[in-house]
Amino acid sequence: MRLALDMAQKAKGQTDINPIVGCVVVKDGRIVGIGAHLRRGEGHAEVHALRMAGEQAEGATAYVTLEPCSHHGRTPPCCERLIEAQVKRVVVACTDPNPQVAGRGIARLREAGIEVEVGLLEQESLRMNEMFNKYIVTRIPFVTMKSAMTLDGKLAAKTGDSRYVSGPEARAVTHTLRHQHMGIMVGAETALADDPELTTRLSVPAVHPARIVVDSKLRMPLTSRLLKDRSARVIVLTVEGADPARRAALEAAGAEVIACGSGERVDLAVAMRKLGEREIGSILLEGGGKLNGAMLEQGLIDKLLLFIAPKVIGGAEATGVFDFHGFELMADAITFKEMQVERVGQDFLLSGYPSYEARS
Amino acid sequence: MRLALDMAQKAKGQTDINPIVGCVVVKDGRIVGIGAHLRRGEGHAEVHALRMAGEQAEGATAYVTLEPCSHHGRTPPCCERLIEAQVKRVVVACTDPNPQVAGRGIARLREAGIEVEVGLLEQESLRMNEMFNKYIVTRIPFVTMKSAMTLDGKLAAKTGDSRYVSGPEARAVTHTLRHQHMGIMVGAETALADDPELTTRLSVPAVHPARIVVDSKLRMPLTSRLLKDRSARVIVLTVEGADPARRAALEAAGAEVIACGSGERVDLAVAMRKLGEREIGSILLEGGGKLNGAMLEQGLIDKLLLFIAPKVIGGAEATGVFDFHGFELMADAITFKEMQVERVGQDFLLSGYPSYEARS
Repeated sequence: MRLALDMAQKAKGQTDINPIVGCVVVKDGRIVGIGAHLRRGEGHAEVHALRMAGEQAEGATAYVTLEPCSHHGRTPPCCERLIEAQVKRVVVACTDPNPQVAGRGIARLREAGIEVEVGLLEQESLRMNEMFNKYIVTRIPFVTMKSAMTLDGKLAAKTGDSRYVSGPEARAVTHTLRHQHMGIMVGAETALADDPELTTRLSVPAVHPARIVVDSKLRMPLTSRLLKDRSARVIVLTVEGADPARRAALEAAGAEVIACGSGERVDLAVAMRKLGEREIGSILLEGGGKLNGAMLEQGLIDKLLLFIAPKVIGGAEATGVFDFHGFELMADAITFKEMQVERVGQDFLLSGYPSYEARS
Repeated sequence: MRLALDMAQKAKGQTDINPIVGCVVVKDGRIVGIGAHLRRGEGHAEVHALRMAGEQAEGATAYVTLEPCSHHGRTPPCCERLIEAQVKRVVVACTDPNPQVAGRGIARLREAGIEVEVGLLEQESLRMNEMFNKYIVTRIPFVTMKSAMTLDGKLAAKTGDSRYVSGPEARAVTHTLRHQHMGIMVGAETALADDPELTTRLSVPAVHPARIVVDSKLRMPLTSRLLKDRSARVIVLTVEGADPARRAALEAAGAEVIACGSGERVDLAVAMRKLGEREIGSILLEGGGKLNGAMLEQGLIDKLLLFIAPKVIGGAEATGVFDFHGFELMADAITFKEMQVERVGQDFLLSGYPSYEARS
């Protein structure tokens, strides 16, 4: 199962909206087949592993990181392949939260007389597909906020200068992170100030994440590098009352413009729902302080990745990592669980999951 | 030498202005004596270890974490004790930066025909006495800044509420830290808002650090808990033009009042010099954002200990960990070297040393 998880991890960022899955087939203590789901629309992990095992699959044990599917999607159901191959036993790390599967795969295998065991390395398998697991159930994208701040919590100097907060190693990790999400989201401020391309800049061919700009007033210039680079779609989130001429011009330049709510500012909860409808299952939020703060305040951030650079910039006016109204009591702060820390070059990377439940 | 360092570490906070030192005497591969300097005015590490070794010290090797002293201070010079005991070889981790010693101890031993080797675990030994090493050469106290902030760099909510940023484990570490410094320094804001006692709250008898309040306008009330608790001296730093009546009242209440400069605000560089003159060799700075910022800006902080709690409080008006004018370019930020991170309960403790040299 460890090997199956490792193989699946390697395909992170390659499978579009699909979960990453690994499978290992073992017969008489020997590995006879290995497989991973590598690309949406192509073979699932089990299919690859069974094909490699051939006739040796008969009477073997299959270790799969996710419950085998029972429905006809873009590929035939994996349950039927396991039954056909006459495997004796299937060990599953975790059930598939996808409402189209959700236990039906396991039930089907058992009906066919196959022994099924569930729960081996379950937590790791669930974490591995945390983005898919949220999206498949809620149809709301999983949002990872990534930011880089100084020891005093600043994203930039008071002048706005931010080149660079973190070191080259941390910046390289950012590109890998982009590649693992289906969308990259920034605010109009960032789009205006930095004119980023928001590409993954990795040499490997990969799914290019959609580039999403939150731009209530449609201030993004038509000359943006974002619009020039056509390697991935550009989505501009705005409000219903936005200037129709600007909207048409942005659409003509290749952007999808989505109106989210009738207020002054983009309704971010509506935005998440509309992005989910467009099959954006995961988003890397690389916002400024205001967008980060608004997303956190509304409970829309699922995971935090915070690089801390060993420097102090000072300046009360300098933008902080979360800029929102805030709470009156320290006891009311939003807390984070499962915090981890690792060193990335000269910086530290803190990661964790906000606990919104504890607050209501 | 590892054992000698470990023993010395255990005496941290017990030796007042003196360095912590450990000594191990080895004869024919067996430890025959161990010792550590435990209290100012009492025996040095070498004396204890040689007494334990007795006649076995003859021809033995002594491992000492710091160059043995050659001058008559409160105790006779350790060099002479080592010569008398007829040890064959002395292994020293690092030379003593104390201008009264500074190589003379090693020279004296060599004159007497003892083999001397220097540099074994030198870096660790230097770090262990980093506070002493600065003070003995400069007569300026070594300042460790300790703070606890949220993930968004805040010391408190916008209302000022700060109970609690960090968890109980981190707060317990703070009491140990206080015990390891000769003074604890806060600003008048903190003295007014929190009315702290600034005691070490440890059950062990220890040197009680002086409590130092930076109070340019002498706003500290005479009813402060600081003044009521007489377990350690209270030093109030102010300016020459401070109200003489308030000054006299504070002195009558038991505080030492020291005027530092003729400006509106306490001249912190002068303050450090005056505290050094009063044998305050090390200070734990537990300031608010303004005092932390002013101390950092003036290059007066030697070491940073920053607890980061896994929570976000928000509020642009909430005080940040460093509140000062700041720099215009990210490239001009004050950087920190030798950064370390460890987990303390639910919090992370980042530590490092500011690099002021790189800036001028």
